[in-house]
Amino acid sequence: MSRWRRYVPALDWARQYNRSALLSDGLAAVIVTIMLIPQSLAYAMLAGLPPEVGLYASILPLVAYALLGSSRTLSVGPVAVVSLMTATAVSQVAPPGSGLYLQVAILLALMSGAMLLIMGLLRLGFLANFLSHPVIAGFITASGILIAISQLKHILGVSASGSTLPQLLPELWHKLATINLPTLMIGGFMLMFLFWARSALAPLLQRLGVPELAAKVLGRAGPVLGIVLSSLLAKSLNLEAHGVALVGEVPSGLPQLTLPSVLGLPWPELWVSALLISLIGFVESVSVGHTLAAKRRQKINPDQELLGLGAANIAASLSGGYPVTGGFARSVVNFDAGAETPAAGLMTALGIALAAVFFTPYLSWLPIATLAATIIVAVMSLVDLSILSRSWRFGRSDFSAVSITVLVTLVFGVEAGVTCGVLVSLALHLYRSSRPHMAVIGEVPGTGHYRNVDRHKVTTRSDLLQIRVDETLYFANASYVEDRIMAEVDSRPGLRRVLLLCTAVNEIDMSAVEVLESINEQLAERGLTFYLSEVKGPVMDLLRRTSFLDELSGRVFLSHHDAVCRLAAELDAENTQQVPNWEI
Amino acid sequence: MSRWRRYVPALDWARQYNRSALLSDGLAAVIVTIMLIPQSLAYAMLAGLPPEVGLYASILPLVAYALLGSSRTLSVGPVAVVSLMTATAVSQVAPPGSGLYLQVAILLALMSGAMLLIMGLLRLGFLANFLSHPVIAGFITASGILIAISQLKHILGVSASGSTLPQLLPELWHKLATINLPTLMIGGFMLMFLFWARSALAPLLQRLGVPELAAKVLGRAGPVLGIVLSSLLAKSLNLEAHGVALVGEVPSGLPQLTLPSVLGLPWPELWVSALLISLIGFVESVSVGHTLAAKRRQKINPDQELLGLGAANIAASLSGGYPVTGGFARSVVNFDAGAETPAAGLMTALGIALAAVFFTPYLSWLPIATLAATIIVAVMSLVDLSILSRSWRFGRSDFSAVSITVLVTLVFGVEAGVTCGVLVSLALHLYRSSRPHMAVIGEVPGTGHYRNVDRHKVTTRSDLLQIRVDETLYFANASYVEDRIMAEVDSRPGLRRVLLLCTAVNEIDMSAVEVLESINEQLAERGLTFYLSEVKGPVMDLLRRTSFLDELSGRVFLSHHDAVCRLAAELDAENTQQVPNWEI
Repeated sequence: MSRWRRYVPALDWARQYNRSALLSDGLAAVIVTIMLIPQSLAYAMLAGLPPEVGLYASILPLVAYALLGSSRTLSVGPVAVVSLMTATAVSQVAPPGSGLYLQVAILLALMSGAMLLIMGLLRLGFLANFLSHPVIAGFITASGILIAISQLKHILGVSASGSTLPQLLPELWHKLATINLPTLMIGGFMLMFLFWARSALAPLLQRLGVPELAAKVLGRAGPVLGIVLSSLLAKSLNLEAHGVALVGEVPSGLPQLTLPSVLGLPWPELWVSALLISLIGFVESVSVGHTLAAKRRQKINPDQELLGLGAANIAASLSGGYPVTGGFARSVVNFDAGAETPAAGLMTALGIALAAVFFTPYLSWLPIATLAATIIVAVMSLVDLSILSRSWRFGRSDFSAVSITVLVTLVFGVEAGVTCGVLVSLALHLYRSSRPHMAVIGEVPGTGHYRNVDRHKVTTRSDLLQIRVDETLYFANASYVEDRIMAEVDSRPGLRRVLLLCTAVNEIDMSAVEVLESINEQLAERGLTFYLSEVKGPVMDLLRRTSFLDELSGRVFLSHHDAVCRLAAELDAENTQQVPNWEI
Repeated sequence: MSRWRRYVPALDWARQYNRSALLSDGLAAVIVTIMLIPQSLAYAMLAGLPPEVGLYASILPLVAYALLGSSRTLSVGPVAVVSLMTATAVSQVAPPGSGLYLQVAILLALMSGAMLLIMGLLRLGFLANFLSHPVIAGFITASGILIAISQLKHILGVSASGSTLPQLLPELWHKLATINLPTLMIGGFMLMFLFWARSALAPLLQRLGVPELAAKVLGRAGPVLGIVLSSLLAKSLNLEAHGVALVGEVPSGLPQLTLPSVLGLPWPELWVSALLISLIGFVESVSVGHTLAAKRRQKINPDQELLGLGAANIAASLSGGYPVTGGFARSVVNFDAGAETPAAGLMTALGIALAAVFFTPYLSWLPIATLAATIIVAVMSLVDLSILSRSWRFGRSDFSAVSITVLVTLVFGVEAGVTCGVLVSLALHLYRSSRPHMAVIGEVPGTGHYRNVDRHKVTTRSDLLQIRVDETLYFANASYVEDRIMAEVDSRPGLRRVLLLCTAVNEIDMSAVEVLESINEQLAERGLTFYLSEVKGPVMDLLRRTSFLDELSGRVFLSHHDAVCRLAAELDAENTQQVPNWEI
């Protein structure tokens, strides 16, 4: 039983489930369902898929995540960035709108789900740590901009096919003459209405005397209201005849459970895309899940999240959906609405299932411009260019990583953007650690504390060089450290002893030991003795396993202050012994 | 003038050149020439090229390096590993033995030379640091094994085309029945003779009364002697008629200077190979150059080495040669023979030029088995499997990197091997730094020194948690550190203050500051105060630019010992204030 509970968190919360949790979860589910219906239709369109695929991706995946996920409030389903990444990946191997396109999208969910499951079983959740927060923030902001601009064509009623800024902007510019005015009016009105409704609808309802709870629920209903209103408008004015693009026939009913086809599909070309989608989806989920859990002193377990999201994606694939993950905005709404357990997700799934059965016939009159407006309003909350100025304050590394991620995403697309972001941030970290900060140090007089001679007033002596390396020693920085130490040594003619303070040397590898041996040798050739101080336990353990300590011309001191006192006394004694020699 | 001297080290040493240096350099040049003639022929064969190409690669490149290189004793020219890498790269795009094959090899030298030059001008010499010593050692050992085994076919007189162990071994096994006995006899004899001559020829000559200097020169002449002997044997016994493969006609004379062809050649497919050849060649050169320079208290400059090697490869390309670099064994011989300046290289180039003019007609009777034996004897000195056991002592990281490099090189070839080696060693470093060592610490009683509670007998108090992070904080480890600290905090019920010792936090980035803010918030929610101590200058500078210090519930202490004393006093005061309340 305990083993089952380890992998199926639902067994945990289900035992303590009670009426009050049911009410809270139920209310949250109603609100999220109202939000998810238009979003799932819209994001499916963003991914280049028929609208019902968005609904299918919002039923079984939610059930799978509710059983296996470790976050209590994450709202899984189609999200903007993953939908854009799906569109990018699938359109590379299948013509948009074809049956093959849909099959490949379903296969992508299967591959992504399998990868997430395997990563979860191998406990590779730590991999998410290698995507730095600023890089992710930059990536999501740039993706939001791309998505918003890519939807402008639906608002303007023109056709365009680009997926990056250099493709989209000239295309839109050239199509300006072919704008469809009724579409622009519907789209423009919906944009204004949705932006207004997002912040002003609930307060207005409350001022009009609607009870708080009802106002809260109806306040999220802006997009649903927009869908109903614009569909009615399109039907009554026969807008299709005026060139307004409508969603058209949508099959109604629940998705069929089928094994996704693999044979004959170009799956070997999808591995990289599936991996990127998995990683981005995972990181997005974990970061929102982590933030929300911390607010209630709960925890999420990254490895369990991999299992939950993996199961959700496989469920999506088996029920004709496309890649899903935990959405940022929806999860926050779910949390704020009072969701206590993943049962809220189960009830949301029920709500979407009901919509798929009863609501779809009404979608045929829905203008596509309405969906585009829904997407634009949703993604604008993801766009936060302040990440550029915030990262600027943290120095060149963070800023370079963020700005390169933003730029490459906008210009070359999402896959290149996220890949570049990760590689650049890792490369910058490696570059910095390959040129570690080093300081010549001396004693802050009378304190026994040793500080950088360039930053503090300290006492030093010309026959003893004290030097501190501020980094783990490893192959990429070992010879840089050697060069720097030898340069310091060769610039000091009266030198007799060299003392290396190792407080910040957290680990050491074979290349670094070789370099320490080489420094020891070179100092010996110059008639100098080499000492170490405050070597950490794990580093000392390793040095003991080599012959370095036998070859070391000096010795290792536990305390740097002791070392300096001892060496100074030795040097003074040697000096007084030498003075008589000179006087003879 | 000084700007010229910065880029042309030859201007430096040429001004001080004198008769004694001329004599030393001249002797070294004679010895290296004797060594280089057979090696250049043999390595050209290893690269799949006609023998004269090896000679061509040993004339102008030496002149170019003598002018621009920063090492005084490096012997540039064809080397084993780069020849194997050339064979691997070129045979992917051109059929061995074709005119295209030669053109591509010449182009590869041009591309590699251009890359090295550009890297030198951009001062990218530090990139070599990212190839760890153990990985390089493993790579060279594995390459040596591959080379030796690949040459066995010439010794056995069979044909085989594989370039990796799983290809070569079964091929040789199946061909065992077709061994050509006369070839095996020549090859086997040459192998034994060369192994013997390498260590025993010079001492024997001296014992026979040959003067030391002459013995030293003749001691290196084993391979040349082998060439002469086996050619005479092949001619006199008409071995070709008995199935012994001979080198055949070799054009005599100096190479023609021509611009290498680029048009119509598959250069876009060669970038990666050219880059790997450049890096490996550069690293091999720099490491031997560095070792030799240190013995005479000279320095080499990695960026200048890039220029020197770049010029050498471009010179190779312009004169019909293939990629070259500084050879390990030859450089050591050059150094030991007393070479003082790169003029030794100039004179070696002259020697090879003379050989190209006068010696080539005699090569037509040279058995290929002799060249193969020369290669095998030369590369066996590169094979050093002890790198596996040595790296084993340094723990899993070094050993994994080395053994993966060796294995992948043997099984999948040189390009995969070196790529894997670099990636695995970087990945392991990143993985380790993403899970830094952390320690709960306490005072070694009465000393003011603070150490790991698990390793030392220290005093702690239950209301103050002191914790040390042994790593620079950055995006890849920030949330791990947060989880560990919060876990320690949540396991201590009586806790009131948390003090983070930052001596080993050498740098900090945006993600890490976010995590510190999050820790501060979470502690505040639990009613705990958060303190830092001994924050380094650069880290403090960065924290000051953020709002972290304003939000910090506690404060930052310069000295950890002061911090502990102060906090302990505060806590004691609070406790005594509380005691009366309880007593009431």
